[in-house]
Amino acid sequence: MAERETQIVLGLDPDPGSLWPQSTTGVAPGASGEAAALRAVAAHCTALIDAAGEACVAIKPQLARFEALGPGGNGVLREVCEHARAAGLLVIADGKRGDIDVTAAAYAASLTDGLATSFGELRGLDADLMTVNPLMGRDAVEPFVAAARRTGAGVLVLVRTSNPGAEDVEDLELADGRAVWEALAALVTALGDGGVGESGLSDVGAVVGATRPGHLERARELMPHAPFLLPGVGAQGGRVEELAAAFAPGRAGGLVTASRSIANAHRDSGGDPAAAARAEAERLRESAWELSAQALARG
Amino acid sequence: MAERETQIVLGLDPDPGSLWPQSTTGVAPGASGEAAALRAVAAHCTALIDAAGEACVAIKPQLARFEALGPGGNGVLREVCEHARAAGLLVIADGKRGDIDVTAAAYAASLTDGLATSFGELRGLDADLMTVNPLMGRDAVEPFVAAARRTGAGVLVLVRTSNPGAEDVEDLELADGRAVWEALAALVTALGDGGVGESGLSDVGAVVGATRPGHLERARELMPHAPFLLPGVGAQGGRVEELAAAFAPGRAGGLVTASRSIANAHRDSGGDPAAAARAEAERLRESAWELSAQALARG
Repeated sequence: MAERETQIVLGLDPDPGSLWPQSTTGVAPGASGEAAALRAVAAHCTALIDAAGEACVAIKPQLARFEALGPGGNGVLREVCEHARAAGLLVIADGKRGDIDVTAAAYAASLTDGLATSFGELRGLDADLMTVNPLMGRDAVEPFVAAARRTGAGVLVLVRTSNPGAEDVEDLELADGRAVWEALAALVTALGDGGVGESGLSDVGAVVGATRPGHLERARELMPHAPFLLPGVGAQGGRVEELAAAFAPGRAGGLVTASRSIANAHRDSGGDPAAAARAEAERLRESAWELSAQALARG
Repeated sequence: MAERETQIVLGLDPDPGSLWPQSTTGVAPGASGEAAALRAVAAHCTALIDAAGEACVAIKPQLARFEALGPGGNGVLREVCEHARAAGLLVIADGKRGDIDVTAAAYAASLTDGLATSFGELRGLDADLMTVNPLMGRDAVEPFVAAARRTGAGVLVLVRTSNPGAEDVEDLELADGRAVWEALAALVTALGDGGVGESGLSDVGAVVGATRPGHLERARELMPHAPFLLPGVGAQGGRVEELAAAFAPGRAGGLVTASRSIANAHRDSGGDPAAAARAEAERLRESAWELSAQALARG
């Protein structure tokens, strides 16, 4: 992040129904429905990376969107990740997985270094970060942390998400006065112990929406070393006083993720989708980088 | 279930490191690592279905295990599901997905009827039931319920899982005296309203481990119409008084899932893996069917 001077994460949520128009030009005439959709999604994602990638530190492919493409979706996901890596970007696999021990280990292997089998190596996705769902408890998250430590990657645990439904479970008040999400934050801190590097950041981070004033400050109190993935902050005009808490351990303390606001920037601004995406990503980059400087100066 | 007289769900968690020996006989010599692993896993799963399927009502493929096979894993998953369907079995896609609205909709489409796109139809998995993680709240589960209602399928929401880590979050006590899992149970009941069929069962069910006495009774109280997926009850020797609660709305109120205890039965009993799996599945079937009869007679 220091090298690229950006905290922006390019979310990739390709919907075959709203790809950039030029994505279909490389599709062979007569290609079957699935094959044509796969090529068009790959073209869309690589064009988006080429346009906006320079202003970003990572891509965040939404695994659901690639799974929805059918059996060929995983191959396209890998192709897109390779393209991003070649452009110097990190890969945040956004799958929000979580399951019992052996199953979590299988998910984690498939997202990182793959499986060694008697048939040979089955290659994983080589992700740098993975989002994980902690509902099932510590033993459902630990295999992801183990895989992350084995491969130099990191884990981003859902703590307080930005969707309206977050109130239904994450915000419930516990008997000890904490919210459920504060208990999840404590789990993140416990799991991250021993994974804090020279940067002051841990390899166990958190997904924290800034949709309520005070959430980020409280989250930072509970998770002093966790990198935060901040959904939609940039696009929603995140406020300095909120971001200050995210950046308390340093500029890399907050990853600002934006997806549709970049890919669909041309719908507001008009003109070429790639040029509009590049301009919007650069605008977000400047804005977040400046906000983090102000936040650090205040802190 | 009535037709097949069984509540047993055959869990498919294929580990390339412990497949039945005969699974590798169909693998072409010189096949690459990945291709060989894919063929062997497919052969293992179809052999397991052929052996034990008759005593079961459904298969429950663990999506993690197929994802870990790499880009070809989803194709093998579909092939295995087709094989099960041809044998008259239902398919329970065990992926424990959960995400914000549009993303949850993409997951749900990929597990059920697929996506209609301008490139044509992208086929989904056609699952009959899907496991879903409710941490992110009601709006993260609703798209799965919508897809289920569109396709005549059902949803199984994680409520109280059977792993040790379930104590870390699901068992936390809320300010109102309930456990977190009891709040999840209330969500299941709210979502299932309007989805209760002639059978007395809803299309929104729950994953409920019977690892603590009293859990199933309380779960049934809170979710009177929900079908329960009961992890490991059969293999762990579920007790009649516990199961009684699961079967209160009828014999289909409890789906008893077993995986390694069937696939690895030959390790205890010796002999042919297929014969041992068939015998173990039939033993579980008889035992659960008899228990449900006793439970209903008592209830």
